[in-house]
Amino acid sequence: MFTGLSAFPHTPLRDDRFDEAAYARLLERLTVAGVDSITALGSTGSYMYLDRDERRRAARAAVQHADSVPVIVGIGALRTSQVQTLADDAQEAGASAVLLAPVTYQALGDDEVVGLFEDVTAGLSVPLVVYDNPGTTHVTFADDLYRRIATLPHVASIKIPGVPADAAGAAARVQAIRDHIPATVTVGVSGDSTAATGLSAGCDAWYSVIGGTLPAPALRITRAALSGDHAAASAESAGLGPLWALFAEHGSYRVTAAIAEHLGLVAPDSLPRPVQGLGAAARAHAAQVVDELRLAD
Amino acid sequence: MFTGLSAFPHTPLRDDRFDEAAYARLLERLTVAGVDSITALGSTGSYMYLDRDERRRAARAAVQHADSVPVIVGIGALRTSQVQTLADDAQEAGASAVLLAPVTYQALGDDEVVGLFEDVTAGLSVPLVVYDNPGTTHVTFADDLYRRIATLPHVASIKIPGVPADAAGAAARVQAIRDHIPATVTVGVSGDSTAATGLSAGCDAWYSVIGGTLPAPALRITRAALSGDHAAASAESAGLGPLWALFAEHGSYRVTAAIAEHLGLVAPDSLPRPVQGLGAAARAHAAQVVDELRLAD
Repeated sequence: MFTGLSAFPHTPLRDDRFDEAAYARLLERLTVAGVDSITALGSTGSYMYLDRDERRRAARAAVQHADSVPVIVGIGALRTSQVQTLADDAQEAGASAVLLAPVTYQALGDDEVVGLFEDVTAGLSVPLVVYDNPGTTHVTFADDLYRRIATLPHVASIKIPGVPADAAGAAARVQAIRDHIPATVTVGVSGDSTAATGLSAGCDAWYSVIGGTLPAPALRITRAALSGDHAAASAESAGLGPLWALFAEHGSYRVTAAIAEHLGLVAPDSLPRPVQGLGAAARAHAAQVVDELRLAD
Repeated sequence: MFTGLSAFPHTPLRDDRFDEAAYARLLERLTVAGVDSITALGSTGSYMYLDRDERRRAARAAVQHADSVPVIVGIGALRTSQVQTLADDAQEAGASAVLLAPVTYQALGDDEVVGLFEDVTAGLSVPLVVYDNPGTTHVTFADDLYRRIATLPHVASIKIPGVPADAAGAAARVQAIRDHIPATVTVGVSGDSTAATGLSAGCDAWYSVIGGTLPAPALRITRAALSGDHAAASAESAGLGPLWALFAEHGSYRVTAAIAEHLGLVAPDSLPRPVQGLGAAARAHAAQVVDELRLAD
């Protein structure tokens, strides 16, 4: 479950309410395409903006519409007891695993981050993916923090930020992480533009933003890289250059929502305010990239 | 209401539940001391860690135990609709004003921050304090952002971060802010160690962490500075040097909780996990500072 392509779908809103019908459409694309797992309620899935009831409904909908594809559910929240409640809800909904980022308001020290993972894993029945997302959590994982958390029970995988752009640097980075964690814990790359490099450098999985909306190109990159055809993976990724440029300029979160809106998969204005969708020019540009590169096919 | 000392009490937990009896004890100290306003559910009050029901109960308790002191209630949350709900709850609880920080998970642009304040102020019946707290929100307010928000209806005050340590630099900073906002909007300093300087430099108010637990020394600084006796304010603040050093090393949030625990006002372990209280050595040091400087008198 913690190898290959894990697709992170958007959790669409319509008039500020969870749009389950649109969510089912997004999930169906993923099962038809044949992704290896679905991670519901990741950052791309707006988890931190949704209340407990919305997250429970999204988790249930994800499991229901995922067919036989394993579903990982994000359980991050600011308070440990809230995370524990969300973990219970996710497991009751049928999640195959959970994803946990150490979300902060007051900055947390390493002992506090470890304490969070200790307290949460102590009550789990399913595996856990550690979510290292410094751009949103403002927590920096040193390799020693990986080590302390990866050796806790139930920890099965680490979602790492993007890797260095050069192959040697990426391989060294992945090896450095592996040297700190048990061999049973997989390493999954995020930062979509670096995924081909990361998979070719030895990552086991790609925790993918764009794979949640455009699974076909994400699967081509993943299958090529994990079969050892690094040149093909790199060429596929290079072909998505205009998309990566949009991500770099506007953030993958807003661009992905705009693409789902452009494709008619979700209603307009599907992000939680105060987050605003792309402006008209960027939106038109994103639509043009998707159409010209035929990314939705 | 938006001048003088606004005291920010800790919201104590006991076994991870809101401890209303301890909260009432904290509030009573503030009314007896004669603070000018009480801001419930600020950062010091752990607002982001509490759920809607806990925040509603804390807001009601604050109003109930504040006697005739005006109560400002923090309504920050990640999603605009959640903020609006919390604003309604605060007003129903009897809040005299609300306090709003643009809390982020995904980074927000200036237009999104302004949009949040527009949407929230449109539904308010009470005044609003703008909460500029970059350390926790990761939003940077340029002066032009102050201008755009301060001209919205209901905006009555801005809580700014600490000012420069030198009197001339602090005065220039306060004047620069004033040049961007309506004359009716007050400026309140935070960053407790810079409060004497900020008040002497022309700030109207001190939004005070330590004032929520140790109101007496905070009031001495405030009264001296606002009466024009800048030397006395500065001397009072200098006398609290050991406390400011603890704040600088461990953060005011954890130190203040440790002080309230040391004074027996709240139960041990009163912060929301994963946040951990001070370690034994720092805790003993904080207790020593409070006792030796007789700060609780």
